[in-house]
Amino acid sequence: MSSTIGQVFKITTWGESHGKAIGVVVEGCPPGISLSEEDIQLELNKRKPGQSKISTPRKEKDKVEILSGIFEGVSTGTPISMIVLNEDQQSTSYDNIKELFRPGHADYTYHMKYGIRDHRGGGRSSGRETIGRVAAGAIAKKILALYNITIHAYTKSIGNINISQVRLDEIENNSVRCPDPSVAKQMEELILEVKKENDSIGGIVEVISLNVPPGLGEPVFDKLDANIAKTLMSIGAVKGVEIGDGFQLAKMRGKEANDCFINKDGKIQMKTNHSGGILGGISTGMPIVARVAVKPTPSIDLEQETVNINGENKIISIKGRHDPCIVPRIVPVIENMMAIVICDHFLINRSVKL
Amino acid sequence: MSSTIGQVFKITTWGESHGKAIGVVVEGCPPGISLSEEDIQLELNKRKPGQSKISTPRKEKDKVEILSGIFEGVSTGTPISMIVLNEDQQSTSYDNIKELFRPGHADYTYHMKYGIRDHRGGGRSSGRETIGRVAAGAIAKKILALYNITIHAYTKSIGNINISQVRLDEIENNSVRCPDPSVAKQMEELILEVKKENDSIGGIVEVISLNVPPGLGEPVFDKLDANIAKTLMSIGAVKGVEIGDGFQLAKMRGKEANDCFINKDGKIQMKTNHSGGILGGISTGMPIVARVAVKPTPSIDLEQETVNINGENKIISIKGRHDPCIVPRIVPVIENMMAIVICDHFLINRSVKL
Amino acid sequence: MSSTIGQVFKITTWGESHGKAIGVVVEGCPPGISLSEEDIQLELNKRKPGQSKISTPRKEKDKVEILSGIFEGVSTGTPISMIVLNEDQQSTSYDNIKELFRPGHADYTYHMKYGIRDHRGGGRSSGRETIGRVAAGAIAKKILALYNITIHAYTKSIGNINISQVRLDEIENNSVRCPDPSVAKQMEELILEVKKENDSIGGIVEVISLNVPPGLGEPVFDKLDANIAKTLMSIGAVKGVEIGDGFQLAKMRGKEANDCFINKDGKIQMKTNHSGGILGGISTGMPIVARVAVKPTPSIDLEQETVNINGENKIISIKGRHDPCIVPRIVPVIENMMAIVICDHFLINRSVKL
Amino acid sequence: MSSTIGQVFKITTWGESHGKAIGVVVEGCPPGISLSEEDIQLELNKRKPGQSKISTPRKEKDKVEILSGIFEGVSTGTPISMIVLNEDQQSTSYDNIKELFRPGHADYTYHMKYGIRDHRGGGRSSGRETIGRVAAGAIAKKILALYNITIHAYTKSIGNINISQVRLDEIENNSVRCPDPSVAKQMEELILEVKKENDSIGGIVEVISLNVPPGLGEPVFDKLDANIAKTLMSIGAVKGVEIGDGFQLAKMRGKEANDCFINKDGKIQMKTNHSGGILGGISTGMPIVARVAVKPTPSIDLEQETVNINGENKIISIKGRHDPCIVPRIVPVIENMMAIVICDHFLINRSVKL
Repeated sequence: MSSTIGQVFKITTWGESHGKAIGVVVEGCPPGISLSEEDIQLELNKRKPGQSKISTPRKEKDKVEILSGIFEGVSTGTPISMIVLNEDQQSTSYDNIKELFRPGHADYTYHMKYGIRDHRGGGRSSGRETIGRVAAGAIAKKILALYNITIHAYTKSIGNINISQVRLDEIENNSVRCPDPSVAKQMEELILEVKKENDSIGGIVEVISLNVPPGLGEPVFDKLDANIAKTLMSIGAVKGVEIGDGFQLAKMRGKEANDCFINKDGKIQMKTNHSGGILGGISTGMPIVARVAVKPTPSIDLEQETVNINGENKIISIKGRHDPCIVPRIVPVIENMMAIVICDHFLINRSVKL
Repeated sequence: MSSTIGQVFKITTWGESHGKAIGVVVEGCPPGISLSEEDIQLELNKRKPGQSKISTPRKEKDKVEILSGIFEGVSTGTPISMIVLNEDQQSTSYDNIKELFRPGHADYTYHMKYGIRDHRGGGRSSGRETIGRVAAGAIAKKILALYNITIHAYTKSIGNINISQVRLDEIENNSVRCPDPSVAKQMEELILEVKKENDSIGGIVEVISLNVPPGLGEPVFDKLDANIAKTLMSIGAVKGVEIGDGFQLAKMRGKEANDCFINKDGKIQMKTNHSGGILGGISTGMPIVARVAVKPTPSIDLEQETVNINGENKIISIKGRHDPCIVPRIVPVIENMMAIVICDHFLINRSVKL
Repeated sequence: MSSTIGQVFKITTWGESHGKAIGVVVEGCPPGISLSEEDIQLELNKRKPGQSKISTPRKEKDKVEILSGIFEGVSTGTPISMIVLNEDQQSTSYDNIKELFRPGHADYTYHMKYGIRDHRGGGRSSGRETIGRVAAGAIAKKILALYNITIHAYTKSIGNINISQVRLDEIENNSVRCPDPSVAKQMEELILEVKKENDSIGGIVEVISLNVPPGLGEPVFDKLDANIAKTLMSIGAVKGVEIGDGFQLAKMRGKEANDCFINKDGKIQMKTNHSGGILGGISTGMPIVARVAVKPTPSIDLEQETVNINGENKIISIKGRHDPCIVPRIVPVIENMMAIVICDHFLINRSVKL
Repeated sequence: MSSTIGQVFKITTWGESHGKAIGVVVEGCPPGISLSEEDIQLELNKRKPGQSKISTPRKEKDKVEILSGIFEGVSTGTPISMIVLNEDQQSTSYDNIKELFRPGHADYTYHMKYGIRDHRGGGRSSGRETIGRVAAGAIAKKILALYNITIHAYTKSIGNINISQVRLDEIENNSVRCPDPSVAKQMEELILEVKKENDSIGGIVEVISLNVPPGLGEPVFDKLDANIAKTLMSIGAVKGVEIGDGFQLAKMRGKEANDCFINKDGKIQMKTNHSGGILGGISTGMPIVARVAVKPTPSIDLEQETVNINGENKIISIKGRHDPCIVPRIVPVIENMMAIVICDHFLINRSVKL
C-alpha cells in the first residue's frame, strides 16, 4: 500500500523534498525495451523548476541516474531503480514555519497521522515526489510507443480562461503548455498578475490518449476509468477527475449522451465520444479523454490564519520559491501518470485471454 | 485484480444480472461485530428496483442470505459470504438484442475484451452487480457506526435542477432522494417527463462523511481521495468524481481556496472546508465531501444507430424495464461504497502507528 | 489478505465446517473455457469424506453448484462463484468441547486472535475449507490441460512405510492414493491399526507437474518455488515443503547436486532433476517436484491434557468422526492447489514479455 | 508482484551483482522508530563477503546509505530508501561464461524467461540481491525489539555434521555461525576440505523467534507459516522449509505430535512445541521454529557438461571467487527475512481487532 501503484507495471516512489534524493523503482517493465537516461531526462526536464518566469526560481538539475534493470542499453525485465539527487535546497528558509501548519498544505494531516514530519519543503508531500512518477512514466511511454499509443496532456484552463481549440503541436511552444495559441499569452499574463498579488490560481488539465486498443480495463473494480481516477487523484493539488463529457453528462439526456456505433469503411467506429473512450470500465478504441481540476498553489505570501503544533492561533505568510500556478508543471506529471496506468492495463490485458 | 477492492476491509463481488444469483465475500470484518441479515436487508431495500413510479418495474425481493462468517449473531473475523438469488428474470426479452451492441452500454467493450458475454440484462456489467457492494457496505456502516462515523449520500441535481439546501432527514422522504424538499417534486416530474419521451437523464450525487477522524489515507498512492475516486468511479454510470470544491477550485485563487486553521474552544478546526476534508490525501477531521457525475441511463426506447457482432449497421431501440434516471437508485450504492473505502482506511490506519 | 490467493488466477474461499455452506470465488479464469459442474464435482468427489473405511464416516454429498461466470457452458472471464451446502452436520457433538482447546488444533490460536470462534467442527480452520480450494483447482486443471500440463499428487509415505516406485495409473486404485501397489496394502493396514488404537498418523505427499514450460516464476519474491511453498504450507496439517531433492541437498556436494545441461536430439535438456524443475525461482521445463510433510490428525480419542477458555486444567479426549490419517484425502487438495499456483504463474508469465 | 513482499511492512529490492548499486525501499515502517545507518550496517556486515577463509575473497565494503524516510534520526512513516554501491566488480572474469549456462544457476531460466540477461555475476539472481533484504530486515528487527521479540538464526548442519546443542551466544564466535562450539571446528574443516576439492557443500539453517505473541497470521492463505515458507523459499539456494518438527511429523503418531496445554502459575503454556509455535497458521506464543535446506553452491571449479545459448554442448568449469558453502553467509539473510515476515504480521494483526 501507500507508495506503490500498478499491478503488472508497478512503481514505488520514495524521497522527500529536502532529503538526499528522490527516486523510484519500476517493476514489470518487459525485457528488451531500449532505454537510456536521456529517455528519462527528456520527461524530467519538462517538469523541473525554473523553466520560465511563471515558475519557481528553485534551480534543480534533476539529473536522473539509472541504477539497475538496464543492461547494454536494454531492459532486462528486472526492477529499474532511478535516482535524482536533491541539490538546491534552502531548508533553513523553512525554519520559521517548522511548527506552523500551512493552510492548504498537508502539514496538519501528516502531523496528525504520523506525529512527526519532515517539514522542509513539505517533505514527502512535496511536488518533488512527482519526479519518481515522471521518470517511471517515461518508461511507460516508451513501451506504449511501440504500439503507437501516445498520451497528450495540456492546460485546458487557467482560472476563467479556457482554450477553444486543441493543437497538440503547440503545447510545448508556450510557458503554460496551452494547446490554443490564441489564449496562451492571456493565461501567462493572468499567472503573472496573480503572482504580483502574491496569490495563486488553479486550472484544468486535459489529457488524451490516442490509439489505445479496445479491451483495456478489468471490471468491476479495476476498471480503466477507476484506475485513471485513482492515479490522477493521487497527484497533489488534484481535486477532481472526469472522463469524457464528465460532469456535463449529469445534465444530458440519454439520446445525446449515448455514442452510436457505425461501420465505416469496414471498421466499427463510434460517431461521438461522450464516453471519453471508456464504456463499462473498458476502453472502446476511441481516444481516452480525461480532465483534472488543479487547485491554486496553497503557498501564498499573504497573511493567513493558522495554528502551530501547540494549537496556538498564529498568522502565517509563506515566503520562499513557489509557483503561482502549478498547472503548467503538473501537465507532464499527468501525462506520465496516464502513461503508467494505460501501460499497466495494457500489460494486464495480455494475461486475460489465452 | 478486477472484482476485489480494499486492503484490510476487502470485498469481492460476483454474479450476473440474469445468472442464478448475485453475491459478495467480505474479508477483514473485525470479530465481535453484531450483524444480522436484517442489517444488510435494510440497505439492499434502498437500492432494489420497483420502489416507485420513477424506477424500473422489475420486481426483485433482493433477499439476502448470510452464508458464513457470523456465529451466534456476531462476526468471527472470517470471510462473510452473502448471496441474493435472482428471481424476476425476463431473459428472453433480451433475445432480440443478443447480437446488437447497445449504445452507451458495455456490450461492445465486453465483446472486444472477452470475445464472449452474457448478454442477458448486461450480464456482469449490470447495475445488479451493485447488490454485492451494498451488502458489503452495510457491514462497513455498522463498523463505522461504532465510532460515530456516518455517511450520507443524496441527489444533488437531476439535469439542470439543483438543490439549494441539504436536510439529511429529508433524503428518504421523496422518491428521488433529494435533501431539499423544495425541489424534490420538480426533480420527480422532470424524470417522469423524460420517461414519457422514452429518454433518460443524468444527475449529480453528493456524499458527505461525518466524524471521520484525521489521519486516514496512505500517501502517496493510497491517498484517501485517490481511493475514493477509484471506488466511486468503479460504479457503472459514474463519469466524474470531485472532492470538496472540486472543479470550482480550478477557477479560484489560493487566498479563497485555502482553509485556515483556528483554535476554537481549545480545539483545532478549519474555518472553511474547500478541501472537502482531505489534505495531502489524508483526512483532516472535517466532513469528507465528494460528488459524482451520473450519466443518463443508456437504455432508451428511441431509435439509435448501432452495429451487430458481425459489424453490420443496424437500428436499435431498447424495450424492457429500465430506470429513466438511475440517480435515486445509485444514491445508496454511493453511500455504501463510500462506507467501504472509509472503513478500509480506518482499519489500515490502525496498523500505521505502534 | 487472508482468504485470497493468487495474482491473475485468484481465489477467495469462505465458509465454516458447520455453517450453511462452503464456497469459493475464482477470478481471472480466461474466457472461453468449457466448464461444467461435472468438471468440478469430479475433483470434489476425490476429497469428500466417507469414501473408504480409513476415512471419517461423515457423509457429505459435497454437491457443487456454479452460480456465476459461466454462460452456455463456457467461462466468460467474470468471477466464477461456486457453492457447496453443508448437510451432515452433527454440531451438538462438539458441545462438550465448546470451551476446551483441542491439542494440535487451531482452537487456542483462533481464540487468542479473534476472541471469538465458531467451535463447531473447527469452524473456519476445518478441513472442509479445502472444498473451495479443490473446486477452484478443478478449473485451473482444465486451463492447464489445454496446454497439456498435468499435475499428479500421491502418497509417498505413511509413517515409516515408503513407496519405492511411482506408477501414476495406480494412484486411484487404492484407498491410500499410493502409486506403488506393493506397499499400498501395508499403508492401509497401518492406518487401520492406528485407528484401532484411537491414535492417528502422518505421512508425506509428493506432487509432480508435467509439461510445465520453462519461464514460470517471478523473481525475486514471487518465485515459483516461493509461491508453491506458500500455497502448500497454507493447507492445514502441512508442516514442511521441499522442492526437488529438498532437504537431501543439505547433505550433498555441488558436483552431485548440479543438474547438467545437454543438447539431445536438438533439444536442451537436463541430465538430472535434483532441482525439481526450478532454478532461480523459475521453471526449467523439467517436471516440477514438490513434497509436503503432513502431520498426524490432531483429533484422537485418547486422553490429553488441555485447558479451557477460563484457563483451567482439563482432560480431553475427542470423540466424533475423524480420519486416523488425513494423507489420502489431502492428496487431491495438494494436487489442486498445485494446479492453482502453476495456472496463476502461467497466466502471469503471459504479461511479462511483449 | 516479483520484487516486492509484505503487506503492511513491505519491501522492494532492486539491483544486480555487477550493476551500479543494490538497494531496497521499505514501506510501512511506523513513524517514530530511531534508526541510523549504523543500525543497518551492523546487519550488512554479517552477510558481507570476505569475512573469513571459508568465504569468497570478493571484497565489498557494502556501505549502506539511507536516502529517505528518516528525519532527525527517526523514521517518519514514509518510504525508507537504502542503497549500497557495488565496488569490487571483476565483471570481465565472467566474459568466458557469457554464453554458457552454469549448471545449478539461474542462467538458463532467466534466458528462457526474459530472452536477455545481465550475465555478470549472475545479475539479478546473485546472492548480492540479499543486501536489500538484510538492510530491510535490520529495520524490522528494531521494530520487533521494541516488543522484546528477537530472531536467532544459526547453522544446524553442514553436510552430515549436525549440532547437538544450541547456545545462542556462541553463534557469532565461529566462522560457520554454529551454536554448538563442539562441532563448529569440524564444520569449518569440512568446508575447507570441500574447497580444496574445488567442490561445494550444503547444510541446514535453523531460525527461532522468541517472544512472538499469540495471534499473528491470517488464515486461510496468509497464515504465518505459509508466509514464512514463501519468504524463506524466496532466498536463492533454499530448497526446503519446515516448521516445528516438520518432516519428522510425517512419521509420528497424533499422541506424540500434539502439544498439550497446561496452566502453569496462572499462565497457559504448551508442554511441548512440536508445532513450532504455529497452529492453524496462527502463532501460539511459543517460540517460532523453522528450518531451511540450503543446497551446495552451484559454482564449482570442476568440469561439468552444459550447453551455450546456441544450444551447443560444452564443458564448463567455474573460476572466480565463490563460497564453497553458502550456509554461514545465508544465516543472517534468513534471520533478517524472518524478522521481516514476523514484523509484517505483527503490524497486520493490529488492524484485525477493533
